[in-house]
Amino acid sequence: MAKPYDVNEQTGKDMTAARAATTIAVEEVRNYLYNGAEEFQTRHNIVEVLQNDPVFDKSQRDFMSRTERYTRGMALTNRIYELQEKLGWNQQQTSTATAILDEQLPIALHNIAFQPVFNLQGSPELVKKYGRLIATRGIFGCYLQTELGHGTNVSRLETTATYIPETREFEINSPTVTSSKWWIGALGKTATHGVVQAKLIIEGKDYGPHLFFVQLRSMEDHKPLPGIIIGDIGPKSGGGFAPTDNGFARFDHVRIPKEHMLSKFAQVTDDGKYIQPPHAKLSYGGMLYIRANMVTGGGWLMAKAATVAIRYGTVRRQGAVGPDGLEQAVISYPSTYYRLLPILSHAYVFIQLGKQLTKAFDTMAGRLAKGDTSLLAEMHATTSGLKVLVSSTGVQDIEVARRSMGGHGYSAFSGLGRIYNDYLPSVTYEGDNFALDQQVVRAALKSLKGLSSSTNLSPSSYYLRLLIPPVSVPNFKLTPDQWLDPANPVLLLEWRAALVVQEMARNLKEPDASVNQRVSKAVTEAFVARQVGDMINEAQTKLGNKRQKEALVLGQVFLLYLLTTLEAGITDVLSFGLLSSTTGSDATRSLRLAIQRVCQALLPEAIGLTDAFGFTDWELDSALGVYDGKVYEALWKRAQQEPLNQMEVPEAYEKSIKPILQRGQRQAGVKVDRAKL
Amino acid sequence: MAKPYDVNEQTGKDMTAARAATTIAVEEVRNYLYNGAEEFQTRHNIVEVLQNDPVFDKSQRDFMSRTERYTRGMALTNRIYELQEKLGWNQQQTSTATAILDEQLPIALHNIAFQPVFNLQGSPELVKKYGRLIATRGIFGCYLQTELGHGTNVSRLETTATYIPETREFEINSPTVTSSKWWIGALGKTATHGVVQAKLIIEGKDYGPHLFFVQLRSMEDHKPLPGIIIGDIGPKSGGGFAPTDNGFARFDHVRIPKEHMLSKFAQVTDDGKYIQPPHAKLSYGGMLYIRANMVTGGGWLMAKAATVAIRYGTVRRQGAVGPDGLEQAVISYPSTYYRLLPILSHAYVFIQLGKQLTKAFDTMAGRLAKGDTSLLAEMHATTSGLKVLVSSTGVQDIEVARRSMGGHGYSAFSGLGRIYNDYLPSVTYEGDNFALDQQVVRAALKSLKGLSSSTNLSPSSYYLRLLIPPVSVPNFKLTPDQWLDPANPVLLLEWRAALVVQEMARNLKEPDASVNQRVSKAVTEAFVARQVGDMINEAQTKLGNKRQKEALVLGQVFLLYLLTTLEAGITDVLSFGLLSSTTGSDATRSLRLAIQRVCQALLPEAIGLTDAFGFTDWELDSALGVYDGKVYEALWKRAQQEPLNQMEVPEAYEKSIKPILQRGQRQAGVKVDRAKL
Repeated sequence: MAKPYDVNEQTGKDMTAARAATTIAVEEVRNYLYNGAEEFQTRHNIVEVLQNDPVFDKSQRDFMSRTERYTRGMALTNRIYELQEKLGWNQQQTSTATAILDEQLPIALHNIAFQPVFNLQGSPELVKKYGRLIATRGIFGCYLQTELGHGTNVSRLETTATYIPETREFEINSPTVTSSKWWIGALGKTATHGVVQAKLIIEGKDYGPHLFFVQLRSMEDHKPLPGIIIGDIGPKSGGGFAPTDNGFARFDHVRIPKEHMLSKFAQVTDDGKYIQPPHAKLSYGGMLYIRANMVTGGGWLMAKAATVAIRYGTVRRQGAVGPDGLEQAVISYPSTYYRLLPILSHAYVFIQLGKQLTKAFDTMAGRLAKGDTSLLAEMHATTSGLKVLVSSTGVQDIEVARRSMGGHGYSAFSGLGRIYNDYLPSVTYEGDNFALDQQVVRAALKSLKGLSSSTNLSPSSYYLRLLIPPVSVPNFKLTPDQWLDPANPVLLLEWRAALVVQEMARNLKEPDASVNQRVSKAVTEAFVARQVGDMINEAQTKLGNKRQKEALVLGQVFLLYLLTTLEAGITDVLSFGLLSSTTGSDATRSLRLAIQRVCQALLPEAIGLTDAFGFTDWELDSALGVYDGKVYEALWKRAQQEPLNQMEVPEAYEKSIKPILQRGQRQAGVKVDRAKL
Repeated sequence: MAKPYDVNEQTGKDMTAARAATTIAVEEVRNYLYNGAEEFQTRHNIVEVLQNDPVFDKSQRDFMSRTERYTRGMALTNRIYELQEKLGWNQQQTSTATAILDEQLPIALHNIAFQPVFNLQGSPELVKKYGRLIATRGIFGCYLQTELGHGTNVSRLETTATYIPETREFEINSPTVTSSKWWIGALGKTATHGVVQAKLIIEGKDYGPHLFFVQLRSMEDHKPLPGIIIGDIGPKSGGGFAPTDNGFARFDHVRIPKEHMLSKFAQVTDDGKYIQPPHAKLSYGGMLYIRANMVTGGGWLMAKAATVAIRYGTVRRQGAVGPDGLEQAVISYPSTYYRLLPILSHAYVFIQLGKQLTKAFDTMAGRLAKGDTSLLAEMHATTSGLKVLVSSTGVQDIEVARRSMGGHGYSAFSGLGRIYNDYLPSVTYEGDNFALDQQVVRAALKSLKGLSSSTNLSPSSYYLRLLIPPVSVPNFKLTPDQWLDPANPVLLLEWRAALVVQEMARNLKEPDASVNQRVSKAVTEAFVARQVGDMINEAQTKLGNKRQKEALVLGQVFLLYLLTTLEAGITDVLSFGLLSSTTGSDATRSLRLAIQRVCQALLPEAIGLTDAFGFTDWELDSALGVYDGKVYEALWKRAQQEPLNQMEVPEAYEKSIKPILQRGQRQAGVKVDRAKL
């Protein structure tokens, strides 16, 4: 018989015990994640400023309407810039502060889309005139590309910009309802200006989409300028992106000066001659930058999900009674830790990958500035594949983490539902994942085609070396112990990629329906696997010789990534006969046992590995992920603030509940005339 | 060069053309789904009543706060019973009307949980006294089981019901914060009464959880009765279950009469003697009924998701230009139809399975009423496995459908986000899927153990016949054409189940971490596969000889289910050497080509097959799933109603936007004193 215990008290004890059981030095791992103590401390100082400022209070957020979320979002933004001025934050610190807020704010569209496009593609004169005002947000911008009827295929956008040589103006026009700009972040209620993508028309000829700087609202009273109809497109799925005013706009023959065409690359002369852009590719940089940043951002979201769910799993007890007379902690069940520890490994991997990618991007941008586009193709292939991988993995992980928390995971107070719904569109924006898959596949097929003539492979196609003749496809037979050598899963993931690409090339005339997705995934995972192999080798160096334990644990985290990635892609491995099998017995068993063993080794370190992310309770904003483990107290406290609880008897009582009860009593022929039956 | 076209006009034309291209008679398939024309007509008549009644208007739903959703939900409920009385609906019709509303209402908890438990487990005297009043909703009930600190493991619930022989009363008490009842639907603001699960304590001895009928609120003013603290537990993930007041309750030594213990099975004598329940199992019926209903319900949700996404994919054009000079419809891309047609097949399969299960449940319930529990174990195994399969498939399908719609899929107006967030907890409630997996596995291992002694296998373990000696594990090598014979995928899915169960039994001493999930899935899918094989055989009979075309198309729908289920489970098939493979070339290719061919054959029928579900626009409540295909008009119209659009300049302007702009202008040293720059 299980002994009774104070469930609430126990949660605190459990968390303390789990923390004490961790053998790693949490700060050392945190410094590894943050590139040293200083970066973490700088960030943490900003967190402290924010979480102690009542403007950034989150306690009412879950109860707010969409309009209230928008209004609050603008107030947060205003306060951030007030603090920037007051505390003398530099641009990096201000960006960090905005990112810490954990809100999808309209200002992001100004900073990430509007401003870079304007600066990169505007003429020097235009940038000189407005650049400073844009940098200080003296005007607030948005980037108007997508239309109601068209997204990905920009060549079919319907908005027109017709050149009027008489007045040296462009006339921006939305000829149809489907040409309305749609989904434009910060457009609905906030932006004063925008960069509009429109088909350039000169003397009736269509020169395709170009960019134009257009004022949208009056600088006196914020009302839309004449000829422009603007509004918000309405709420998003699951309440996601609530503070962002994704908007629509229709232009009714709106005139702008000729100089407001962003004409660094393409130009129109006064008399209406079109001048070709010299280096169209030079404008791709911005998109790649956003995708590179998505890898880091996704990694930190997985870190939040892992932190919340692993903490809850550590203090939630349920089911079988252990030797201590208490029910077992949920995290100790294989079906739970097998779900959660891989998320932890994804977080560590994507955070590291993001750092590498940012470095690679900087190198490329430097070359690009000198007109050297040689690194662009590789950067494009890598960021496309990683964008697909990080967003699809991240969305899935957040939901897996939420679901692992059972009933309470469905409470808004778990915090993961909000993160999920905010992150959900990442699989669609900045290139729909299914469209990007095709680009990854195209790059892979191209590399394969050129393979015979060159062995000088870029990192993203390094796996193709396996197909250079003489080719000998291996047949692996590994014991659980042999799986623990990272070289094996890395090599198998590379073989898998090589063979699926080769097979696709053979069947180009009759592809099956899902081949792009399978090939893209295999190719990206092979690239990542080799990077992760390097992370294992480098962990010791980065941590220093005194930190052997931490290096070992990090090695296991990365190994778990490799093994579970291989497990998820095992169909290809088996299908191409890469794993030795005997009819009637399970060829995957030794791999699965190896995963089980790595999980068991990591389990005592799980709380330490999540603490190393360094999130405060305010940052996580989750009743189930509180640092002290007292999840039930936190849930109770939050529930008391629910608006329905502010009236003892709800408005619905007189209007609906009472009539239902009285009708029922009449039908039953029972007269209920007492408070208590 | 693609020719320009009126995108909005084209959507209507595309839908008309797709509808004209369908070769099946839609009404015939609809009648197949609804067991004949009458059932559909009866349902449709109710739909007409509801969609023409302003109380059931949905146009403001997406903009409502949680409190407004609750208030509206109660108004809908009141109106349903008003209509029941006015139009003379019988109970079946009233249930249908409530289900049609597509809202998670508190009344469901009264109808599905409170009332059946009360009637099944209350003493004859208690049922006589309150049964009628409960049936007419003269009192409104809820079912209080889960607590803040405990869910699944009811033996650890902390609420106590202590017998006081002096007054012949029970004293209900919540000794700790974690003993608060939590998550209880309809408790927060609505219910007047409840059935409370509490540990029965007699003279200090704990007899485990029992049920007690407890009044919660005054029948005079709806205020909680003295000693009871009640409230709503707050919002749910993604705004799901908004109209339901999931609540908490704490009892401070609340006394109830002895007669209010539900004592049909267990009793306490006046002097405090405990009398054992004779047939504990008899009380399981209700839970199985709910799970059986979940199969049908899940099938119809998949039908909604498939209808919306297939309609949108039919009219949304994007990317490559086809021979007609227009961009291709999104549905014509393999990466789209390969995602959507399987959802269509899931809908057809689960709707059919649900009907069979309801029939089987009725048979079992009939026997159970006579004290015959012989069918209970099989029903338990079947409903557990199917509940896991339908809920996990359904949640995934709704999101796959939403995501297939790209950017616009993320708009709340797509309607699928709402359905998703309402359906999400189905993987947790009525038995967490991970817990149910264990029960499926346990039943399978038991059947395997008893296999040598008996060949009399129930449907849920029929696949185990393959393991009766002499066993000869086959090695399949099939051309794409051979895959089109349903017998092959059915047999392979059965072999897969047999071998994973056998393998698990061999490795019980060292299981891997995910084995329960894999085995449970394989076992349930083998059972379903055989049922689906039968559906294919019976479709012709059910449709009649004149309907060969429809039977053929339905056969393809079911075949697609079998082939894609096998594809998703192909790892096990390959791992056990059931598919012949050659090192270096893809063993799964012929299966994937077969899927591709079935998809291509079904594609022209997709609109007909979704029309056959018979949903009206009001039912779907999706701008992207409108019957006439004019999705852009619908999106435009809905966006105009967004509350943020009701004010030209938002409240945030004076408070936050203006300060941001002015600070920026000051920092830039630019004085902006004109409306237009």
